[in-house]
Order: sequence, then structure tokens, then C-alpha cells
Amino acid sequence: MTLPSSPVLQALKKSASSMANRNTPFVYNEWYVAAFAQEVSREFLPRILLGKRVMLFRTETGQAVALSDRCAHRAYPLSLGKLDGDTIVCGYHGFRFNTEGNCIEVPSSSKCPKDLGVARYKVAERGPLVWIWMGDPDQADESRLPEHEWLCDESAWATSSGYFNLQSNYVSMHENLLDLTHLSFLHAATFGTPDYARAEFRSEISQGYFALHRDVVPTTLPALWAKPTGLEGCATAARIVKSEFKSPAFHQVNVSFYDSKLAEQDRRVSRIKTAHILTPQTNSSCHYFIVHGRDFGLEDDAITGFMHENLFKAFQEDVDGMAALEQVWETTDPDDMYEISVVSDGPSVAMRRYLKQRADAEAAARALPNASVQTVSTAETPSRKAETA
Amino acid sequence: MTLPSSPVLQALKKSASSMANRNTPFVYNEWYVAAFAQEVSREFLPRILLGKRVMLFRTETGQAVALSDRCAHRAYPLSLGKLDGDTIVCGYHGFRFNTEGNCIEVPSSSKCPKDLGVARYKVAERGPLVWIWMGDPDQADESRLPEHEWLCDESAWATSSGYFNLQSNYVSMHENLLDLTHLSFLHAATFGTPDYARAEFRSEISQGYFALHRDVVPTTLPALWAKPTGLEGCATAARIVKSEFKSPAFHQVNVSFYDSKLAEQDRRVSRIKTAHILTPQTNSSCHYFIVHGRDFGLEDDAITGFMHENLFKAFQEDVDGMAALEQVWETTDPDDMYEISVVSDGPSVAMRRYLKQRADAEAAARALPNASVQTVSTAETPSRKAETA
Amino acid sequence: MTLPSSPVLQALKKSASSMANRNTPFVYNEWYVAAFAQEVSREFLPRILLGKRVMLFRTETGQAVALSDRCAHRAYPLSLGKLDGDTIVCGYHGFRFNTEGNCIEVPSSSKCPKDLGVARYKVAERGPLVWIWMGDPDQADESRLPEHEWLCDESAWATSSGYFNLQSNYVSMHENLLDLTHLSFLHAATFGTPDYARAEFRSEISQGYFALHRDVVPTTLPALWAKPTGLEGCATAARIVKSEFKSPAFHQVNVSFYDSKLAEQDRRVSRIKTAHILTPQTNSSCHYFIVHGRDFGLEDDAITGFMHENLFKAFQEDVDGMAALEQVWETTDPDDMYEISVVSDGPSVAMRRYLKQRADAEAAARALPNASVQTVSTAETPSRKAETA
Repeated sequence: MTLPSSPVLQALKKSASSMANRNTPFVYNEWYVAAFAQEVSREFLPRILLGKRVMLFRTETGQAVALSDRCAHRAYPLSLGKLDGDTIVCGYHGFRFNTEGNCIEVPSSSKCPKDLGVARYKVAERGPLVWIWMGDPDQADESRLPEHEWLCDESAWATSSGYFNLQSNYVSMHENLLDLTHLSFLHAATFGTPDYARAEFRSEISQGYFALHRDVVPTTLPALWAKPTGLEGCATAARIVKSEFKSPAFHQVNVSFYDSKLAEQDRRVSRIKTAHILTPQTNSSCHYFIVHGRDFGLEDDAITGFMHENLFKAFQEDVDGMAALEQVWETTDPDDMYEISVVSDGPSVAMRRYLKQRADAEAAARALPNASVQTVSTAETPSRKAETA
Repeated sequence: MTLPSSPVLQALKKSASSMANRNTPFVYNEWYVAAFAQEVSREFLPRILLGKRVMLFRTETGQAVALSDRCAHRAYPLSLGKLDGDTIVCGYHGFRFNTEGNCIEVPSSSKCPKDLGVARYKVAERGPLVWIWMGDPDQADESRLPEHEWLCDESAWATSSGYFNLQSNYVSMHENLLDLTHLSFLHAATFGTPDYARAEFRSEISQGYFALHRDVVPTTLPALWAKPTGLEGCATAARIVKSEFKSPAFHQVNVSFYDSKLAEQDRRVSRIKTAHILTPQTNSSCHYFIVHGRDFGLEDDAITGFMHENLFKAFQEDVDGMAALEQVWETTDPDDMYEISVVSDGPSVAMRRYLKQRADAEAAARALPNASVQTVSTAETPSRKAETA
Repeated sequence: MTLPSSPVLQALKKSASSMANRNTPFVYNEWYVAAFAQEVSREFLPRILLGKRVMLFRTETGQAVALSDRCAHRAYPLSLGKLDGDTIVCGYHGFRFNTEGNCIEVPSSSKCPKDLGVARYKVAERGPLVWIWMGDPDQADESRLPEHEWLCDESAWATSSGYFNLQSNYVSMHENLLDLTHLSFLHAATFGTPDYARAEFRSEISQGYFALHRDVVPTTLPALWAKPTGLEGCATAARIVKSEFKSPAFHQVNVSFYDSKLAEQDRRVSRIKTAHILTPQTNSSCHYFIVHGRDFGLEDDAITGFMHENLFKAFQEDVDGMAALEQVWETTDPDDMYEISVVSDGPSVAMRRYLKQRADAEAAARALPNASVQTVSTAETPSRKAETA
């Protein structure tokens, strides 16, 4: 019987206490993706984001709006009401709200009480994504959106996208994305190859940014990559990978493929990027939006179809695997739970410490005596001022 | 972003703390409806009432009996046993009980231990309803039954009845019934009209009785009411509504319809009454019995059929709406939950305060050192004395 | 209303506090059955045992192995990985473990960290059963296996076996097995007869061994027993029963049948034995393995078929009944719960006290400052030493 010894276990538990996991509060002061732009329409879209019930819709001029999905009166879901122009009408007692979340009419009363409203969350629409800020509104600066210009640049990148309702906490999925040695195992049947896990790697670790570089050269690409890049049968392929945690909401994988036996100037380099977009739903589930892009064969729908089908098979392996892992956490006595880290976990451990620090700092700020009861406002800047999305 | 400001939220929370909601203990010292009379037979009927497992049946002479649905021995459900005359035989080890809940035989033993019994609850059968008292038996006075004579008067009232297992706490449903402004919205497709919510109202608020009066005159009735009352196409109809909370178990809606352009002596007044009968099951579900009656066209089965079909469509809207509301409470962080009340909520707020006071007073009494562990008995009057139902 | 009076209830609760029930911790320092031998193969078999995730498989030489079903790295279920010879390869990042639970390779690293491993549980295979020891490995002495030689003796006993995933705590099922008066009621349609419950009985109660003897003579056997023993229509049959709690994991029922009107030397005695094997899964479910054997008509497949079919119908009655009982415990306010014991409960009450003492003693030992965090190891004998199954 080979368990870590008791002193080792104690040390592991101490170390684990500084790393985020499924029990860590969410980090609210960040931009998260609430929905694909095409999901937001004149029909209300209810969605649980960071543990809170939100609903999204578009104004008559097409602007995306996100409100707390509950009437200010008796908490009935606003998403069960209807839109009258740009006025939201609650489906229970008919209270009416404008797009700022202000109540503007109570049918049973000739005058509308002041200060009756629901939380409105700032949104920022960029290309295919609608972002939401659910933390302190004073910090909702769009400059804090993680960089993702390629996603909005249709002239340079052909994209395809998908969505999973992932039955896993978001921390585990971020960790998955920061340790791609799992490609050789979890994805052995799709985009992994045995040499991937053993390849040299280097990492970049800084406050809020964590990256892993892995150059697999020479290698033989799996069909998924070899076919569309024209590198089928090539035993000297290069697979240059950079996997970046850009924010708690956004992870990007960047890969370049070429034939390494050609001189640099003769190479045809094919690039792909994948945005792995994670928005916590509950502590054991998240919205997992994926946008995949390539900079070659932009007009070739057959490539798009082939890659989409095969990529999402691989992503399904992550989705299934993370759900299985969540079940272990869910059903194991916390006293029996431990994790042992190895060298390749460096970036993910740093990332989990960063998330834990962020979450703890926010929790401490919320606990201050003059802090608002709601996460979403601060005592210094109460309520009524209008804010543009 | 328009949230109530932090001081407003604090005030709301303080106010909410005196109002009953889904987390408030049940009020036990009241008569509740356990079942429709026709449901109680020589087959055991198991049912969870006020959080407790109860079973009902009839004696050979037809008397309704309610016992705790668990054997005194090892807690096996008595409802899985069988009746032998008026003796209940447990289906596990064959312990036998009489209708008082006293154990009268233990098969494996020649003598039956004393003081071996299960709780018997007083019942009172009235017309179509079997009432149960689950609180202090010394207070189980039938004079405390809410008045509902019309329900038992078949000569004057034609009735139809139905049942929902409502996935909502009973407080929310009582509040629904005390604020009928929701008819214009939740029931816009059935028995609501737009003018209903805006009509003048007055309220009666006293200890344990709360009523709302609303005279909608002149109005155009929805088909549900217009058709059976002969007021179709009439633009001068009167709809005189009185909605009464008579007890934690019983709400009654009384409506009169007539043509207001006729002089009082020429009017044909059609009356309907609806008993909305709520018996908590768990903190998030209740038994919702409905009996609807009218004092016109008593023999006309077509009217009965038409009204039943359309009324229960409308009641289904409440059932669906309350379940949606319960989900908001269920999935929202209590720190994020608030309710803002307006003028028309006066009676329902008073009612919720009343329920809270009742529940708190009972809880305090239970906590007294000489109180029984069980809600259903008191230290002063222990067990054995026989009580008639 | 006949409830136990308040002082009686208080006394019952005090008494109950010394008896094991669904809330009592498991007893780990015992051999439990993990699986039927035929279930353990070269495919991983994941199973929750005593609240812990375990997986079982066989080595290339056929030896059964049980490991904690989680990788030492990030807790991914090892049962989702694969076997490479006798090496377990984790399906997530490819960590490799030997059958001792030691990590022997980390693909992303040239050297494997020391002390990286998962719990290996001792197993003991005996006939159709694979036993597991999940407590202190120093106490894992095979001499502590409950005696069950007949189970492995195919020449003397014809057996048939089955499995239920019982939705009940294991204590209730042990109690069921130690009070067979329930045969007359729960099994009235299968192997119970009315006189069974009333028959005289005597009990043996010692530390860790509890038995009930019941001689039902003369009796008429139910078809299930009468038919295969040739005692159909015999009104002078003898049914001599001994029901033995041999360990928290193992209960054995031994019955002899013969015609009592024959002199002892002329009797043909037919014997049956049934092993009721209980391994807790969660606090409200257990693995219920059953092996039934007879010492007559060994080669007669028709008897085997007849008895198997009818016996497992009867066992299904226990399974359904225990699930119903569990629901009472699950849904009843602990303050309202009580149990009253009668004379025939003597052995089961003693057994429940014994289980409670065992569980409490183990819990106290785990809480000692120098005890391991894990139940499965002790501070004095850390980790690495190899142990044979």
C-alpha cells in the first residue's frame, strides 16, 4: 500500500489550501462571455452566470442588455415576461422596467416607487461574443477585456464555434488547458500523439498570465492536423504550440504547423488558434464556449467541416473527462482528497494560486463593513447613475 | 445599473426578516385539509403533510382516521401494511395497531408492551374535505375550522374540484392569492383583463384575516366568465371581487357578476366562489386542493364542463408560475435575495407577518423545557387518552 | 393519540444513541466483499466501497488487485485508464502505476517523484468471493475473515448467487436478518408462514457474534422449501433455523428441514445455507451479495432453477422493504424519529450496539494526533513497504 505518508499528506494539504479548486468563490471582477452574439435576440435568454440568474436580450436598435433575471418586487423571473418595445414587462404583476433595470411603472399604483430596480450588468459585444461584467461596476473597464482581435477578424481567420454545458468546475478545465501533456492520453484517438507529452516545454508565469510553450519537432501529425495542412505522411512536421491563460474567462491555444525539413523561407506555415472560453455557472458546471480559427484555406468549406467535426470530437473527450473528474471531487471525503504536482504542473499551479488570491481578495473586500450586500455595487457609488454598455 | 442602494437593501432585509417565506417553520396549530373525502378509503393513503409522513384510511363504519405513517417499532411505513377489520397490521414484523394508534399485539411476544404507539391525528370530515389537526391536540377545537359551509351545500352551489402538487412553498401561493393584480398578467390569456390590475381596491387587515376587495365596473368579462353568466359582449359588466385569507390552510375568492347598466332590482347577479386550499408538504411544495362553485345554472353540466376546463387552465398558470418563482429562491444566494413591496402588497405583507409570528410563537413554545419532543403532544397531557375524531 | 410520552421518548432517544444506524461511521477494520470473483477481470471494475472509490482488476497471472480509483496526480479515475501488462496507465496525463499503487513513470518528466502513489487495499480471494480490507493495513490478518468454508466447497454444496444494489444503509439490513419474525409478514407470499413469527426462539449474544435460533416444529412448509425437500403436503415438517451475524460484512442463515414425525435415525435432513453479504456503499446504500447453497439434489438443475427464481423473489421483498424504510429515515425530522424495541429485538439491539462501539472506537483512533489523515494507513508504518494480497 503506497499512500503518501502522513507528513507528506499534511504538506500537500497545506499547499492545496493556496490553490483554487471547485470550492473557491468566483472571481467577479473580470469580463466573462455571457453568450454568443447570435444567441442574444429579442427573445429573453435566461442563463446562470457565476452563480447568478441573468437574462439577456437586444433592444430595438440591437444593443445587447443583461439584467438580473428577477423582478425587483417578488423575484419572479423577468425572462418569463415579455418585451414591449424596450420595456421589460414582468409576467407576474406587470411591473415594467427600462433597459437600465429601473422600474418605470407599477400597474396597481399611480406612481412608481423610487429606487425600485434590478441589477443591470455591463456588456461589451465583440465579434461573435457578448461579454458581461458582474463585479464592481466601477472597475468595468473595457480595456480589461482579454485581447482576442483575431476572433473578430473574418478576413484573416476562418472560424467555427461550439458550446458545451460542462459538468465541471472551471478551475479544473483551466488546468486541463494549461497542461497539454494530456493530449497524448485523453486525446490519443483524436489530436494527441505519444511524443507530445514527452516534448520539452517552457513556461511563462506572471501575475495573471500563464503560458506553456511546447515545440514538437520533428513529429508526425495526427490526421486532424495533417490533412487540412497538407502534411499527411510527413515525418518531419513541426508542431509549435503556445497555450495561454489570458484571464479567468479566456484561454487561447495557438499552434503553427510546417515541414521542418524545409528552410525557413520555403516553409508554408499553417496557423490555428482556439479560444476556450469558460464562464462559471455553478461550482460544478460551466458554460464552455469554443471558437476555433485557421489562417489557411479560408474559403474551403470542406476543411471547415472536417476540422469542426473532428475537433469537437476531441473537445468532447475533455468534457467527458472533466465531468468524470468532478464526480471524484463530488463523492470523495475532503479528508481523503489530495493532489500531487509535478514539474509540468508549474504553470497550472501558479494559475490556481492566482485565482485563489483574486477570489480571496474579492471576498475580503465584500466583507468590509461599508461594502454593499450585493457583489455588484459598492457603497461609494450607489445605484442610479446610468451606465452605457 | 439600478440596484436598490446598500442602505435600502439593508432596510429591505430587516423588513423581510419579519415576513414568512419558504424558510419559515410551519404553523401546526391549525386545521389543514389532508385529502378530499373521496380519496380516503379502505386502502391506506400515504401523504406527507407539514413535513410529516401521515397515512389516512376509513374504518369499517366509514370514519376517516389519520396515523403517523411509521410503525412504532422500527419505523416501517404502516401504509405498506394492511387492514384487518379496523386493525392496522405492519407489513414488516406484523405489529398490530388499533385506530387510536395503540399497539395491541406483537406477534413474536405473548404480551404487548405498554406505551407502544404511533401518533394519531384528529380529523374532521366536512362535505368533500377531510381536515387534519397536526398541532397540540388540546387545541384541536373544531370551532377553529375556517368557515366553508357553502362547500357542503350542494343544493345552492354547483361545484367542481381539482388537485395540484404545487412545487412551491405555501406562503408564495397565499401571497399570489392575496394580490390578484396578477390576473392581468399571469392570466392574461385566461381570466385576466388589462383593467383588472389598475382597478381601485380596498383591504381589510386584522389578526388572522386578510381580505382584498376590488370592484371592476364597468368592464368586459373574459369568455371564461362572460359565457356562463350570459354577459358575453356586455361592455358594462360588473366584476365584484373579494379575496379572503381565512386561515393558513384556506383562501376563498368570491366574485359577483352582473350588468351594471341595469338598476339594482333588475340585475341578475351570478356568484362564484373558489376555495384555494393549501397544505404544506415540504418547504418547497404543497398540496393544492381547489373547489370551485357557482350559484347559477346548477343543473347545467355543459357550464360545469366549460368552466372546469378553462379555470384549471388558469390555475395551471399559477402552478407553473409559482414553481418558477420557487426555483429563483432555490438557486439564489440568500445574500442576493430581496423583495420590494408596493401599496397593493399591504394585505399580503400583513399576512406574511402574521404567519411568521404564529410560526415563531409555536417554535418558542416547542423549545420550552417541559415541551414534548414531538410537536403533536404536550407534556401535561401524555398519550393514552382516547380522542374522538 | 398514542405517542410514547415525552419521558419515554427521551429514554428511547438516549438508548438509541448507543445503537448504530444510518448515520454511524463505517467500521473499516474488517474484511468486506468487494466483488464476486467472476466480476474481477482484466477490465477495471470501479466500485464505491465504504464510501471510497476503489477499482479492481486482475494481474496477468490472475491475482486480484484493489487500488484507490484516483490518480495520485489530479485525482482522475484510474478506472478510465488502461492496463499495459500489469501497469496501470492513467487516462488523463498518462501517469503509470504498478500493482502496489506506486507511481513508476510520469511521461512529462524524465524522473519519477518518490512517494507518489495511491492506496492499495489488501484483497483475499476465496471461492466465489473477493474480499477487501480497507482499514488499518497492520490489522489485515486473513485469520479475521469470517468462516465461510462451505461457500468454497462445491462438492458438498450446490450454490446460486445474486446481487442487489440495496438502497438502504447496511445496519437496517443486518437488523432485518437478525429478526426473522418478519418472514411471516414481509415474506408472507414467499417463504414466510404465519406460525414463524410466533415460534419460540433463543439467542446467542457475544462480542461480535449474534445468533437467533428458531425451531418451527411441526409446521407446513411454503412451496419454496417444501417442493425441493420433498416435504410437500407434510403437516409435521420441522424447520430449524439459525441466523448468524458473523461480522459487519457477513450474515449466514442456516436451515434444516425434515419430517418430525419420523424417528431421528429415519429422517432425511435437507440443509440450506444462505450467505447475506453486505458491503456499505454510502450511508444509504450497500452492495448486497447473496450466495445460496443446499446440500441435497446437488446435480439437479431444475431444483437450482426453481429455488433461485423463488428465493430471489423473496430477497427482492427485503430489498424493496429496506428501501422504503430508508426513505422514512431520509424524510423524517430526526427529532421525530424513535424506535421501540421488543424482546425479539434482543440480538439486533446487541448487534447495533456492537457496531456503534466499533465505529466509535475507530473514529477515536483516527482522531489521535499521530494518526494518519487517511483511514487506511498509520503514522507508524508509512507507505512504501510491499504487501502481498
